[in-house]
Amino acid sequence: MPEGPTLAELGETELIRRLGAFAPRGQFDDDAALLGPALLGPAGGGGGGTQLVLNTDVLVEDVHFSAATMGAKDVGWRAAAANLSDLAAMGCRDAVGLTVGLVAPGDTPWAWVEEAYIGLTQLLGAHGGVLLGGDCSGGRQRLLAITAIGRLVGGQGGPIRRGDAQPGDQLVCTGAHGLSRLGLAVLRGEGLPALAPAVQEKAIRAHRRPVPRFDAVAALGASRPGALPWRVGGCDSSDGLAAAAAAIAASSGCGARLERTALPLDPAMAGLPAAEAWCLGGGEDFELVLALDPVWAEALIAALPGTTRIGELVEGPAGNLGWSDGRPWPEPSSGIGGFQHFG
Amino acid sequence: MPEGPTLAELGETELIRRLGAFAPRGQFDDDAALLGPALLGPAGGGGGGTQLVLNTDVLVEDVHFSAATMGAKDVGWRAAAANLSDLAAMGCRDAVGLTVGLVAPGDTPWAWVEEAYIGLTQLLGAHGGVLLGGDCSGGRQRLLAITAIGRLVGGQGGPIRRGDAQPGDQLVCTGAHGLSRLGLAVLRGEGLPALAPAVQEKAIRAHRRPVPRFDAVAALGASRPGALPWRVGGCDSSDGLAAAAAAIAASSGCGARLERTALPLDPAMAGLPAAEAWCLGGGEDFELVLALDPVWAEALIAALPGTTRIGELVEGPAGNLGWSDGRPWPEPSSGIGGFQHFG
Repeated sequence: MPEGPTLAELGETELIRRLGAFAPRGQFDDDAALLGPALLGPAGGGGGGTQLVLNTDVLVEDVHFSAATMGAKDVGWRAAAANLSDLAAMGCRDAVGLTVGLVAPGDTPWAWVEEAYIGLTQLLGAHGGVLLGGDCSGGRQRLLAITAIGRLVGGQGGPIRRGDAQPGDQLVCTGAHGLSRLGLAVLRGEGLPALAPAVQEKAIRAHRRPVPRFDAVAALGASRPGALPWRVGGCDSSDGLAAAAAAIAASSGCGARLERTALPLDPAMAGLPAAEAWCLGGGEDFELVLALDPVWAEALIAALPGTTRIGELVEGPAGNLGWSDGRPWPEPSSGIGGFQHFG
Repeated sequence: MPEGPTLAELGETELIRRLGAFAPRGQFDDDAALLGPALLGPAGGGGGGTQLVLNTDVLVEDVHFSAATMGAKDVGWRAAAANLSDLAAMGCRDAVGLTVGLVAPGDTPWAWVEEAYIGLTQLLGAHGGVLLGGDCSGGRQRLLAITAIGRLVGGQGGPIRRGDAQPGDQLVCTGAHGLSRLGLAVLRGEGLPALAPAVQEKAIRAHRRPVPRFDAVAALGASRPGALPWRVGGCDSSDGLAAAAAAIAASSGCGARLERTALPLDPAMAGLPAAEAWCLGGGEDFELVLALDPVWAEALIAALPGTTRIGELVEGPAGNLGWSDGRPWPEPSSGIGGFQHFG
């Protein structure tokens, strides 16, 4: 049957591009959907200038999580954290809540599901939002399909969008990168140099218990120099730091240059052969990567500990990545380009 | 390992009850989540008295749909229709849109996904709403996890809730039941008496192309006698007509009596041995089942063709079902109690 390409042949990026053609123009430009007055209607959720943000993430066993590397509580925590991180990446300061579509084989122990929901509500209890509803079904594989909803409250600052950056913006990120990937390596027993137990623990925690950076959004709003209008390009680094920089640059029609000497490496990563690759391409650190006017970038770095300048946006082909010192960028085969879920 | 019951042992009803304990009290009482000012915050989506409704449904291959009985276009249409039906069942007159979490094995043809999204957006085009966003992932089984969002616009009528019925209310439904199950039987080649081609076609269409009853919600609002405050108990009949009546009665703390001589059978079902069982328990007809003050019920029946009285709510144990003539109710083994997704 001449059915054309499979999803694996297309790859995730091209698949999302094709799916976006079924949505209103621009609707798939960010990781989450922005519902303003145009979508919500004149009497809708736009009251008082408030907009809504809606985000869906699917977490599938053996693709996004594995019983070998985390327990059910971590799965629930991480699933909720990943969704709330996308709300933060859109500029939300908190979450209203989320719905959960649970799929699992009938022989799944209730205890596993209970633990997953304990972890999920622990994350909500610590970072905001409640369980709003959901659905459940049998299926061959455990998975959580989560949809989170958040607000952009009028007067607190506008949305953060991938396409709102421009050449001359400084690229900053709100924390170290690569730790989550290191934690995964520790859990998988990948061949690693000897690591202090405290380092291992820190890395495992980064992998299992990521945190949505709502605090960074609040700091971003508070640090905005009065003279500057709201314009923030950005996304979260769930797919990797380099992928985030490339996505911002691609959506904004420009290039990005990263400072090789300013990679946001955690001290725990020092001396690891894979440190640079994992910092750029490890993924799942769930920090915010932001493109800001230089004055604002400086103010945010001063205001929010852990935030560092990692590079800048430049004129150039959309999405083009490079080092600021002109050295050649790693080949795609380095795995730095991000994670492919249909690989 | 003493892990306690499995999900199959618990069953879907008990599983949902246990999951509801992780949510705010009452949040799991309906098929969809109602987001009022208390959840959305003072400057939130409640502007102008508008509330939001959020609904998540998971449709899994070989559980909710099968390549043997429907093509990808039908899968997409039906998935969207099921979600929008839950919005209608909460009192929404339209949908803002929906997000789709797509999971499929990497060897899935793009053509299948494309067809599914064509069907999905055909439904949206015909009945309102747009594709807002989503996520995709590889996995062992095809599934769509859909979250739909709708509005309850202030002044257009309040929510429809399962627990808002009371003894003395008349039970009405907005159309015939059992046709979807008949269509499934035709598609599966179950042993059936000879059926006219037009009947087969009608039943197959009911199964593959259900329609969310937003029109019924508008008629409900328009038919409300001026003297009556808004109070409507109800849900949709996706899990079966008897299950809907039982759910309304259970949530409202009373019983329900159905009129055996007034079953909403489509003429196409006449003479079929399974007619009564499929009408009561076939499921997936996606009509609205409503408990209304008798005056309002009469007005709605007069206003909306196809709407019929099927029984009434009575004092009695919560969720107790019976026939109004006192004859014994079918045993649970008849399958009339609804569909178990972990069976």
